[in-house]
Amino acid sequence: MAHQEKETSGLEWRITLGDGSSRSLVPETGPVSRIWMGLKGLMAGLVLKVWKFLNKAWDIGVDDPRKVIHCLKAGMALTVVSLVYFTRPLYEGVGGNAMWAVMTVVVVFENTVGATISKSLNRVIGTTLAGFLAFGVHWVASLSGQKFEPLIIGASVFLLASAATFSRFIPSVKARFDYGALIFILTFSLVAVSGYRVDKLFALAHQRISTIIIGTCLCILVTMFICPIWAGQELHALTCRNMDKLAGSLDGCVEEYFDINGELEDSDKHPDKNLLGYKCVLNSKTTEESMANFARLEPAHGRFKFKHPWQQYLKIGASMRSCAYSIEALNSCIDSENQAPEFIKKHMSNVCLKVSSNSSCVIKELAKTIKTLKKSSSIDFLVEEMSSAVQDLQNEIKSLSSLLSPAEPLLPESKETEKTTSTIHLLEVLPVVILASLLIDISLRIQDIVKTVEELANVAEFKAEADDKAKQNQANINRIVPGQQNDDQQTMKALERA
Amino acid sequence: MAHQEKETSGLEWRITLGDGSSRSLVPETGPVSRIWMGLKGLMAGLVLKVWKFLNKAWDIGVDDPRKVIHCLKAGMALTVVSLVYFTRPLYEGVGGNAMWAVMTVVVVFENTVGATISKSLNRVIGTTLAGFLAFGVHWVASLSGQKFEPLIIGASVFLLASAATFSRFIPSVKARFDYGALIFILTFSLVAVSGYRVDKLFALAHQRISTIIIGTCLCILVTMFICPIWAGQELHALTCRNMDKLAGSLDGCVEEYFDINGELEDSDKHPDKNLLGYKCVLNSKTTEESMANFARLEPAHGRFKFKHPWQQYLKIGASMRSCAYSIEALNSCIDSENQAPEFIKKHMSNVCLKVSSNSSCVIKELAKTIKTLKKSSSIDFLVEEMSSAVQDLQNEIKSLSSLLSPAEPLLPESKETEKTTSTIHLLEVLPVVILASLLIDISLRIQDIVKTVEELANVAEFKAEADDKAKQNQANINRIVPGQQNDDQQTMKALERA
Repeated sequence: MAHQEKETSGLEWRITLGDGSSRSLVPETGPVSRIWMGLKGLMAGLVLKVWKFLNKAWDIGVDDPRKVIHCLKAGMALTVVSLVYFTRPLYEGVGGNAMWAVMTVVVVFENTVGATISKSLNRVIGTTLAGFLAFGVHWVASLSGQKFEPLIIGASVFLLASAATFSRFIPSVKARFDYGALIFILTFSLVAVSGYRVDKLFALAHQRISTIIIGTCLCILVTMFICPIWAGQELHALTCRNMDKLAGSLDGCVEEYFDINGELEDSDKHPDKNLLGYKCVLNSKTTEESMANFARLEPAHGRFKFKHPWQQYLKIGASMRSCAYSIEALNSCIDSENQAPEFIKKHMSNVCLKVSSNSSCVIKELAKTIKTLKKSSSIDFLVEEMSSAVQDLQNEIKSLSSLLSPAEPLLPESKETEKTTSTIHLLEVLPVVILASLLIDISLRIQDIVKTVEELANVAEFKAEADDKAKQNQANINRIVPGQQNDDQQTMKALERA
Repeated sequence: MAHQEKETSGLEWRITLGDGSSRSLVPETGPVSRIWMGLKGLMAGLVLKVWKFLNKAWDIGVDDPRKVIHCLKAGMALTVVSLVYFTRPLYEGVGGNAMWAVMTVVVVFENTVGATISKSLNRVIGTTLAGFLAFGVHWVASLSGQKFEPLIIGASVFLLASAATFSRFIPSVKARFDYGALIFILTFSLVAVSGYRVDKLFALAHQRISTIIIGTCLCILVTMFICPIWAGQELHALTCRNMDKLAGSLDGCVEEYFDINGELEDSDKHPDKNLLGYKCVLNSKTTEESMANFARLEPAHGRFKFKHPWQQYLKIGASMRSCAYSIEALNSCIDSENQAPEFIKKHMSNVCLKVSSNSSCVIKELAKTIKTLKKSSSIDFLVEEMSSAVQDLQNEIKSLSSLLSPAEPLLPESKETEKTTSTIHLLEVLPVVILASLLIDISLRIQDIVKTVEELANVAEFKAEADDKAKQNQANINRIVPGQQNDDQQTMKALERA
């Protein structure tokens, strides 16, 4: 009854038609109100979109406040250079060409110090080179008479612009001088076709170059001295961060596979963010390359010398990516339809987890080595630990064969005929064995990372870590991998050798 | 004797020292000749470097002649726009602001039509928007008296420049409007601080915008009508090429593993270029994304409509990359130290090769589907073929277990005890089994590619292929995988179902 009352609670006009049926009268919407409704919907949609956009921008700002600082710095540099316009003496000093200083600041100001220096150099060198060349062409053209002048200038613009455009396709030029080539074309065409007389050109070139130098100097000073962001430091931090992500993913994948936290159903739907960290490693090649390129130009900063071997970071990055590919394969084991039966998983879980935790320990130690710029005293020991865990895993795989034999009491189906039993079990065992072999593969790739990091430590002359740290690390390892009977003996041996 | 004669054939001055030993006299080199030698070495090095650089440039040009054409087009556009300078009526029509037309051409002219359109739109919209805003700010500032004018203008430059710089960090803005934001900042600062009176500003803005429109129109016309390079077509071709590379790598890896061509030692040192094609797939994410972004803006061209679903190509690219990760793992199987004994490899080679050749057939068929923009009539059949090959492989793995049992006559060690024999053989079999399971994994990932390509075919409304093609394909398949007893029966069944 309550339901019926609810239905008829609103007033309603009905009309009875000729055939006896009745129809309710809906208030007719005129074109004006329809347009109004449409507009309202449009406005609401727009407001929502703007709101979402602002929300996203806010998140980006909160996530990395340095981006906000960079924007304020850019605003500041522009405001300062605008002062040139307002202070008459300076304005007249550069002959009304102050526009070029503003332009330079807008175009050259970049996020990192290295990028700003790179663009500044490109702009100054490109402008100067093109200016001189255009001056020469102008001189030749003016000597050859009024008839040939446009021809010579046109041909030179065509040839040089084509050549400079082509040079931008060459990878080594593209990486370092892309902007310079653009500026070269720009300046050359502007000066060549400007139609000024040669004596006036000199004054113009002088003013243009001095405004550009004012602009670039201002940019370099602001990026370098107000909350500087160094490309080198960024590259360094990115490498450390990626290593930590790699270690986290490795641990996460193996734990997820053996369902350590007992929430397979939940995490199946919402994959752990930690677990997918390796994807960042896969996608950071371009960033690393440009950072390394900019870092070369930066002066000594923080703990880094001028000639810090930034190129070596690219090698480390490549070896990390090679490791990340294997983790991708490992990750697909989790989603695979073919899963080993629980008792086999349980049987293998301890030794697999040991390999993964030892492997991620090595990666974390490497991350620490890079972070602290100090040679690790325990890395050899940790690598040995990892190798011995891999050896254990290999032994375990060997011993799995004995599980396959019908004499083994562990198996419930042991009453069946020989062939069937082992047939079933090889297939059942396979998923775990594949996971194990991937883990072994990963440990090999980690040794490549160790090599590249050691090269870095040698080239950059990292200092050795204090000895007491090593003992602390050893204690940590014993805590991480408990239940090993012969751990202490191995530790002692390894320390004696080290 | 001949050897001794050779040694003393040159004349030599010797001096006998006080202690009885003798020393040969070498003609002393003066500082001038030393500098000369150094200079000569330096010059030779420089010439060699320039020569290498030119060689490289030549190779790039020969490799892709369209790059050369692009450069000639850029040169042409610039020369044409320079004419504006030389034809007085046009020059005076834009009030001496022809510089901006040259600048626009230099900055906006890009390799593909889509990129040029995108930059043109960015430049025009950015300039217009910033111009209007700056005009408003100027008006407000001029009303507020001479004292506050610089303050208001400075504050507005600071705020807007900061905000626009920040917007470039937001991924959706960065992907599409990065250049527009830059131009916005540039125009706004230039106009706001220009110090012109409002009435003069209007004329200036009008001239500026008309020169920019002249420049952008010229660029768009040249890129579009002279040997155009369409971003969409490039993306399309890149996707096809990557698929072919993927198929080639897959075939190559498995053939190399089973040493089909019998040149393992040679190819071990010089990995086949074909074999590493999948690495291109791994690295093409950034290119694909920017191409898809530009392609959206391009008008209908060739066989593509205006609203061709370019975004779908990104999904196809992602599924191809996922497949390439697995091929990377497959590739590491080749270099692995642990190799299965030859007789096991031989035993498994046929069925593994069948899976790989069927899988690569599917990929090639997908490449053909995309290339021809026609729905393949044989893809279902090919996928089924692949699945049945995978089924055979799984059966083969099952039957491997029987090889492990001591009763099997194939094994030479069959006289030993049960446990030892099977223990040895699981480990021996393992490398091949891992390869096999990777192949199975790859076939699953290929089915993802099939799905994404089918989505593309549906959304873009591909037409169906002619029926006689299907039969031809079937004939091809029978030729590729010979020696299958039940192939014909399966084919008939599949065709009946299709």
